[in-house]
Amino acid sequence: MALIVQKFGGSSVADAESVKRVAKRIVETKRAGNEVVVVVSAMGDTTDELLDLAEQVSPEPPSRELDMLLTAGERISMAVLAMAIADLGEDGRSYTGSQAGLITDSAHGAARIIDVTPGRIQEALAEGAIPIVAGFQGVAQDTKDVTTLGRGGSDTTAVALAAALKASVCEIFTDVDGVFSADPRVVPAARQVPYITYEEMLELAAVGAKVLHLRCVEYARRFDLPIHVRSSFSHREGTLVMSPAAIAAAIAEGKAMEQPIISGVAADVNDAKITVVGVPDKPGQAAAIFGALADAGVNIDMIVQNVSAASTGRTDVTFTTPSGSAKKALSAIDAKRADIAFEDLIIDEEIAKVSLVGAGMRSHPGVSATFFAALADNGINVEMISTSEIRISVVTRVDDAKKAVKALHTAFGLDADGEAVVYGGTGR
Amino acid sequence: MALIVQKFGGSSVADAESVKRVAKRIVETKRAGNEVVVVVSAMGDTTDELLDLAEQVSPEPPSRELDMLLTAGERISMAVLAMAIADLGEDGRSYTGSQAGLITDSAHGAARIIDVTPGRIQEALAEGAIPIVAGFQGVAQDTKDVTTLGRGGSDTTAVALAAALKASVCEIFTDVDGVFSADPRVVPAARQVPYITYEEMLELAAVGAKVLHLRCVEYARRFDLPIHVRSSFSHREGTLVMSPAAIAAAIAEGKAMEQPIISGVAADVNDAKITVVGVPDKPGQAAAIFGALADAGVNIDMIVQNVSAASTGRTDVTFTTPSGSAKKALSAIDAKRADIAFEDLIIDEEIAKVSLVGAGMRSHPGVSATFFAALADNGINVEMISTSEIRISVVTRVDDAKKAVKALHTAFGLDADGEAVVYGGTGR
Repeated sequence: MALIVQKFGGSSVADAESVKRVAKRIVETKRAGNEVVVVVSAMGDTTDELLDLAEQVSPEPPSRELDMLLTAGERISMAVLAMAIADLGEDGRSYTGSQAGLITDSAHGAARIIDVTPGRIQEALAEGAIPIVAGFQGVAQDTKDVTTLGRGGSDTTAVALAAALKASVCEIFTDVDGVFSADPRVVPAARQVPYITYEEMLELAAVGAKVLHLRCVEYARRFDLPIHVRSSFSHREGTLVMSPAAIAAAIAEGKAMEQPIISGVAADVNDAKITVVGVPDKPGQAAAIFGALADAGVNIDMIVQNVSAASTGRTDVTFTTPSGSAKKALSAIDAKRADIAFEDLIIDEEIAKVSLVGAGMRSHPGVSATFFAALADNGINVEMISTSEIRISVVTRVDDAKKAVKALHTAFGLDADGEAVVYGGTGR
Repeated sequence: MALIVQKFGGSSVADAESVKRVAKRIVETKRAGNEVVVVVSAMGDTTDELLDLAEQVSPEPPSRELDMLLTAGERISMAVLAMAIADLGEDGRSYTGSQAGLITDSAHGAARIIDVTPGRIQEALAEGAIPIVAGFQGVAQDTKDVTTLGRGGSDTTAVALAAALKASVCEIFTDVDGVFSADPRVVPAARQVPYITYEEMLELAAVGAKVLHLRCVEYARRFDLPIHVRSSFSHREGTLVMSPAAIAAAIAEGKAMEQPIISGVAADVNDAKITVVGVPDKPGQAAAIFGALADAGVNIDMIVQNVSAASTGRTDVTFTTPSGSAKKALSAIDAKRADIAFEDLIIDEEIAKVSLVGAGMRSHPGVSATFFAALADNGINVEMISTSEIRISVVTRVDDAKKAVKALHTAFGLDADGEAVVYGGTGR
């Protein structure tokens, strides 16, 4: 008997009808001979409605109280889902994050899970029940206050609980069929990826693929827990996110075809590019800039420093940051204008970050050459470059992003009609 | 420094504006030099909306899950109220029933409080905060599941918490100015009662006055905790519900005028009268009837048995019960038709119970005479009579109820223009 953790997001439980459909699916899984633990998000727009209400009484509500308020959302969805399951004749029982043993630190609004003690969930399973756990929430170890986990929180709850329960898989139900080689709205020929490694998924999540949150993939990697991303609207197999060893085993057993070199292409248009112009080229200037940004809590992605002009002894430092942090970044640097003695500060929000991700590029030379040739052939100018072992990212004009993604998708043989190439080995 | 528990019902916190108004009042109380603990119900129609949602997924939802669902209502109101208090510069902190130490049995939907361990509330007070506690909810001692207290639950939470914290008073805020000598919608001359004993309040609550629930008054009496019923829309003094000794002390200190003999007149139109006709007049028949009703969980109020007719050796047994239980009562008796051998079963829902309540009637003879004379003078027929030490109740036609209440109110000098009589002593 396998133990399966199933996570359903807010859009999967948006109204009573959806809740009943999800309940049916859960009961099917249980009656197929599995133990099932469910993690659920707040229904549809509940969270937004609660945030609206908070705004009406206070412009800056205390984060402890905001957490107390928002956790009412999952309390509603989990109780209703448990009722729908009971109506189908199974013993659905809802549990808050606290009752399910999701112990966190006390960073309200963005709490980190520090322990999972799912004693009550195990008891419920032993009694043949289907435990329904509230996603996104926990209880602070020191203050015993209710906390929320922040963005991607429900996925992280599901993975953490699956790891603690030693589940065989954590199924994340979403409104798409799985992970695709590119956004199907941009590249109609994009194909669903049957297997992907944690590392590739992390890189994809970091560069704008929105299927899974970074945090939940990191958690799964740490515990080597397979994640199955699949659609709540169909019974098709989705994408399995696993370790390279697990994928190799699946291939050896003939359950999977050989892994492609490149797993996907993604574009992120939510970054801004900031250039600090005419920075005196002497030691400590970069530290001053990035120290100021760190103090202001600004996350930095790509960084480029020009070779300094011999005539002026000055250089330009350019970096990218999420658009939402751009204003904070500008004022943090402007506040150090006297210390850094730069000449100008320029922001450019009309950029996109286009990325190619694939564990195979480690062992296959020539990926970079194909990458840049494809962009050049399509007349796309590259403004910044950043690479990891399994990723190449470039900054382009935002208007070029879709063209770039399509060009790369084709160049690396990922288009659906090039099937043999995609799973064939060399990929070029 | 006095410790005051303030309870606000759903209509007092129906929307963001009301929440802000309530927050202002709480902060005023705190800044007047008091320690304040707040108990709050769910906002406006939240509970009904959640019940609707439950009904959409399951015709008979499990009571454990219904409690989990409904408690989301207070979670929202208490967090929003804490935010509004924080916005006024005080440290509002919300606590669930479980966090506030409201330990109950596990009778979901109608749990009884078995212990109150308000350690976290006391800590919050010691830190100068204003704790906001969710009304109506607790945690089951054995299962650790979330429970609700059923009807009157939030008032009971407030009184129980006030007793555990040894508060000087529990203020119950409502949409009326206090307890009245009769329903002001029926008797425009009704006057607000400044003091009333627990016993009188219990009798009034039992006979249809809806200001306070029986259960919370019983709790307050057990712990001798004064309840102050007052309006959330004005700063007027309301009605203090206290022990006779506390009222006597207030009178001795000149804080109150002498207590009236009669504290109020009330009518309850929510009862039905059931007559079991032609019951053989032999031992055990009443036991058979009321045993069947008890087994079916039907509450009985008044009971009358006629003198049996010598010619037939049969008698009629008549009782009243809440209209909501009438159907259950009829089928419980009908199921025993063979055993009891009665001739007919008649239900009459067109009745009202009219009651006069006053601790003073114990020591003042003549109250009954005045009572029945007033009804007779107004042509009101009395169908059943029941009395306690401090109450006289009669069943009349429902159409006579308002006339009866007005007649009694006038006969006992309770009308507002008869002030000297009301507080004067003999009352007749």
